[in-house]
Amino acid sequence: MPHTYDYIKDGQAIYAKSFATIRSEARLDRFNTEEARVVVRVIHACGMVDVAEEVIFSSHAAHAGREALLAGKPILCDSQMVAHGITRARLPADNPILCTLNDPKVPELARQIGNTRSAAALDLWGEHMDGAVVAIGNAPTALFHLLELIDAGAPRPALVIGMAVGFVGAAESKDALAAYPGLESVIVRGRLGGSAMAVAAVNALASEKE
Amino acid sequence: MPHTYDYIKDGQAIYAKSFATIRSEARLDRFNTEEARVVVRVIHACGMVDVAEEVIFSSHAAHAGREALLAGKPILCDSQMVAHGITRARLPADNPILCTLNDPKVPELARQIGNTRSAAALDLWGEHMDGAVVAIGNAPTALFHLLELIDAGAPRPALVIGMAVGFVGAAESKDALAAYPGLESVIVRGRLGGSAMAVAAVNALASEKE
Repeated sequence: MPHTYDYIKDGQAIYAKSFATIRSEARLDRFNTEEARVVVRVIHACGMVDVAEEVIFSSHAAHAGREALLAGKPILCDSQMVAHGITRARLPADNPILCTLNDPKVPELARQIGNTRSAAALDLWGEHMDGAVVAIGNAPTALFHLLELIDAGAPRPALVIGMAVGFVGAAESKDALAAYPGLESVIVRGRLGGSAMAVAAVNALASEKE
Repeated sequence: MPHTYDYIKDGQAIYAKSFATIRSEARLDRFNTEEARVVVRVIHACGMVDVAEEVIFSSHAAHAGREALLAGKPILCDSQMVAHGITRARLPADNPILCTLNDPKVPELARQIGNTRSAAALDLWGEHMDGAVVAIGNAPTALFHLLELIDAGAPRPALVIGMAVGFVGAAESKDALAAYPGLESVIVRGRLGGSAMAVAAVNALASEKE
């Protein structure tokens, strides 16, 4: 005989209880209001309250990201998962979302520059980088190459969300981003990261609604 | 003056070093070869070797999932992020990937059944569930509702990847899946989970290439 499971089925009630749990368990006191909203969503995306200890914002990062989205600037993503995870309905200005990874020019570009496809895809961002919100949720090589492009004179984004994940270059690329002069950034230190965290940061900046 | 960063730029070399690091650090001895391949990719997706402690396979889960993919069965996903994260080129039989979350019928269905849109979307899976690989990377309500549908006589999937994430119902829904009689499953216990982990499990089952 079919039985039913006892669980909360109301989406809004689930969100409310989730965020209340996170705010009661996580150490958020070193963050301002805008930053805390980002950290809460990043925690929500991964299920670990301790990730708060690893999140580092530059001085005006959260505010700069929020202002860029309000101004309609594009969101540039290193992976399709990031691009498809962003909640369109939360965006304040119907902001364009751009991921160039699957562009047919990318494999040849990667060969030319001797880097990964994830890195080469950024060479197609061009003027879209100017004042944009960049969300790196996967590839350390993309994050390193972003810094190389800016070094070489590419337009500066308003904010770089550096949440590359993994065992080779992730920690180093995010440290390099956080140390980059005059570039607003938010990172998760170390190996932790991923597309869900990068998406959570964008979704948090997109709307004040929790 | 632009400077360059010292990092590995060869995708295959990055994969090789990543997986070697994971295999040297993670405790994989309780897994068979097929299971270990899944666990290694799940670790790769989240950056935490300790997640291995939380991965639970039913007796024939990894093998059943691999056989279903070889047989061309579809992959049914609870979220767009999962659907877009799966590497098509790794799939052994050009397997269809289905995510019904954005179907226009879903909001009304959700109202009718008094559940979330994530759960209601599964009511559109129908006969596609028969022998399929189900990948739940986001919503505990989707996982609970899947079990309700199977209770009520829906066709059984070959494997359910239960990697719902978060603070409300995630641990409970995955425990319910693991306890479900006669259903092959792999779960990550507790709050941990997410679309990247679910994708990693599918990608690992799809090809023996590491």
